[in-house]
Amino acid sequence: MNNLTIHLEAGTGTAMYEQLYEYLRNEIIDGKISQREKLPSTRFLATNLGVSRNTVDRAYQQLLAEGYIEAKPCSGYRVCDVTSLYLMKKEVDEERVKECSQVKEAFSGIDFTKGGIDLETFPLATWRKISRRVLQEDVSILETCNPLGEYKFRCVIADYLYRARGVVCTPEQIIVGAGNDYLLMLLTGILQGNHKVAMEKSSYEQARHILKQGGCEIVEVEADENGLQADELKQTDANLVYVMPSHQYPLGVVMPLTRRLELLEWAKEQNAYIIEDDYDSEFRYKGKPIPALQGYDKDGRVIYLGTFSKSIAPAIRVSYMVLPVELMDSYQKNGGMVSATVSKIQQETIRLFIKDGYFERHLNKMRNRYKEKRDCLLECIGDLRADWNIRGEDAGIHLLLEYPAVYGERLEVELRKAKIKIQRVGVKENYEALILNYGHLRKDELVQSGTILKKIINQL
Amino acid sequence: MNNLTIHLEAGTGTAMYEQLYEYLRNEIIDGKISQREKLPSTRFLATNLGVSRNTVDRAYQQLLAEGYIEAKPCSGYRVCDVTSLYLMKKEVDEERVKECSQVKEAFSGIDFTKGGIDLETFPLATWRKISRRVLQEDVSILETCNPLGEYKFRCVIADYLYRARGVVCTPEQIIVGAGNDYLLMLLTGILQGNHKVAMEKSSYEQARHILKQGGCEIVEVEADENGLQADELKQTDANLVYVMPSHQYPLGVVMPLTRRLELLEWAKEQNAYIIEDDYDSEFRYKGKPIPALQGYDKDGRVIYLGTFSKSIAPAIRVSYMVLPVELMDSYQKNGGMVSATVSKIQQETIRLFIKDGYFERHLNKMRNRYKEKRDCLLECIGDLRADWNIRGEDAGIHLLLEYPAVYGERLEVELRKAKIKIQRVGVKENYEALILNYGHLRKDELVQSGTILKKIINQL
Repeated sequence: MNNLTIHLEAGTGTAMYEQLYEYLRNEIIDGKISQREKLPSTRFLATNLGVSRNTVDRAYQQLLAEGYIEAKPCSGYRVCDVTSLYLMKKEVDEERVKECSQVKEAFSGIDFTKGGIDLETFPLATWRKISRRVLQEDVSILETCNPLGEYKFRCVIADYLYRARGVVCTPEQIIVGAGNDYLLMLLTGILQGNHKVAMEKSSYEQARHILKQGGCEIVEVEADENGLQADELKQTDANLVYVMPSHQYPLGVVMPLTRRLELLEWAKEQNAYIIEDDYDSEFRYKGKPIPALQGYDKDGRVIYLGTFSKSIAPAIRVSYMVLPVELMDSYQKNGGMVSATVSKIQQETIRLFIKDGYFERHLNKMRNRYKEKRDCLLECIGDLRADWNIRGEDAGIHLLLEYPAVYGERLEVELRKAKIKIQRVGVKENYEALILNYGHLRKDELVQSGTILKKIINQL
Repeated sequence: MNNLTIHLEAGTGTAMYEQLYEYLRNEIIDGKISQREKLPSTRFLATNLGVSRNTVDRAYQQLLAEGYIEAKPCSGYRVCDVTSLYLMKKEVDEERVKECSQVKEAFSGIDFTKGGIDLETFPLATWRKISRRVLQEDVSILETCNPLGEYKFRCVIADYLYRARGVVCTPEQIIVGAGNDYLLMLLTGILQGNHKVAMEKSSYEQARHILKQGGCEIVEVEADENGLQADELKQTDANLVYVMPSHQYPLGVVMPLTRRLELLEWAKEQNAYIIEDDYDSEFRYKGKPIPALQGYDKDGRVIYLGTFSKSIAPAIRVSYMVLPVELMDSYQKNGGMVSATVSKIQQETIRLFIKDGYFERHLNKMRNRYKEKRDCLLECIGDLRADWNIRGEDAGIHLLLEYPAVYGERLEVELRKAKIKIQRVGVKENYEALILNYGHLRKDELVQSGTILKKIINQL
């Protein structure tokens, strides 16, 4: 070591220290200062290099902290065994990365498969105003969040849920989280144990996946025109059921009250829970929104899930879960340690958006707009021949076009040729349907695609 | 039914419909219209009530949609069996709710157990300015997020991680998520199968809990003054290890390079993964920040976790995980379906905060401020008697005061009397330590508590 020549460019103490540190580190990494070799004393090196002892000492301390050298009592510093070192020389395998990152080509036609919403009516100016107001507050807005969500935000949610959805709960039962997917993940932790979840064959794929991931076994149950069949459910040994009673995805079914009550009775008898995913219940075009199943539950068997992603914007990652009181202990024990997932700033912005009446106004505007879009699409499709039906058109932002399954293949091929992307789903024996998500499409796109669809149907 | 008297107050068609609907619904719920009873025809009821047929029809349609009545072909509407109904009459058991919600009394003294940060220096005005800028953009800021995080945000993170932490990765390997806890939950899904995770006995409790929840088995491994012992690790059948090499919590240990390399070698040999939690690595008061373990890893064995919650603000729920390329397929398969958890607005705000240099400036300011606080506390505690030591004081925002375990009980009691809240932790045989989180405390609080602490120690 003593025979190494070190060239340092003159500079401030810190600059000299940096150079010396870098130099020594590289020498060690490259094996030029060999393992177990003793470093010169700080005094010796300082004199030799014409720098202060402090400069050398700082370089040694940094090397020591990073573990390149070690201090031996009464004998100075020695180089450690870092022969397997490869610091920052790794080359990223770009090819492999590209392969994995699955960059999909953007689709240029009309895409009915995306579950997006209409953003043109979004009151961005209002949102901006409220955001500014929220950030005018003191720094407490930046402090640690309550894992459940801020209390005053949950009060506003509880109030909204009661008024708009007939959900009966206290703010204490509400957990705010960054999206339904996350809340489902959290829920599998809260429920503990390996649950058997009954789901319709055609249901929300993401939920199925997350529940499975969380250790649940999925039990498929048949559905009819009223949704998941309670009789079939009773034949299984499921102790959890996942439903979307207000507007099932993808089939668009609105579960009637009698079926809902059957589910509640089953849950009570079996000591089971019902997960009610109320994802787009705000939009109903015929009559009033149908109250949530949770509102009918007197035995605390319903776990209610809702989201602002459909009603405000998909980029706003805020959902809420209402737990039955009985599950709150289990939340504290098994989920309470998970930190909050929604920033206080966002919680407060949404709270004011609701409290000051903007949310309700926005929902009304959206509801009208979606109704117009739906009407527009239905008008273009026009009257359908026998055995062809429109389903689930009275709520939400998607509807189904049902037809004898024999036409499915040709329908898809012809639509693909016309650059219209759709998804087919099996409905019942010999029948399937196109899932038409129309919320995010412009009216002119709906007219265009609806007209083409009509033409294709007529030529089948 | 025909003999019921219905009183409707005059009003618009909608008002009449609402009244009629409410009236009929309540009659059904209260059992006054009995099960299977046929409803009068719309014509009959309309004439009788002096309203339009349309008004009656709307009320019937709503009852039908909600499932209170059902349509029988050629015979009008009949009331369904809803005898078990209890809609919105449920009373919430307030007592039970309070019991479960575990409202804790606020602590009025000086609390060293909270992991909070210093928010007084937060550049709220800058944050406000950037937020405004972000919301000036078009509505695309509200569209569905990439589940991995927005690409340009990940580019900025990759760049920052390389410069500041020596982490070598492409943006494609980064997953943005709402907090480390959430990302750990996601990770258990990505890794699949039941892993055995090695952890230090004293480690981050939240991580332990979440990994367990995700189906992992925890294997405790002894630690020494250099952190988790690689020799001990080799004796186990763990295939995953969780470490915080830059500044272990709670023990404050900085893992030297040799130990890091041993871990990497173990991971390579065992085909195991290392979870590197780099939670507060930005703050180092002696020399430069120590590069992350990930930067030394040439075999793709390190899963790197970092967060903006310590470096920006706890209420900002944004963390990031760097996956080895090899795990990206598994992410796509097992985690890719989980929707984004961080809003685009927040991602873009942080991106600009970093890109425009505010972040680095903020970190420097914070680093100085924390150093001052640390110095202040250490100065008050002053020289310690033999067998008492300060540990982990060169990094992060907590330090340890180590002492012979026999003093622990009395120390805690005396401190409690002085309204100072601390947490004790076992360090090694016959020794334990106070964990002193000082980041969130004001200087005057540190002087006050440091002086008291000193006095108590002297009287022990």
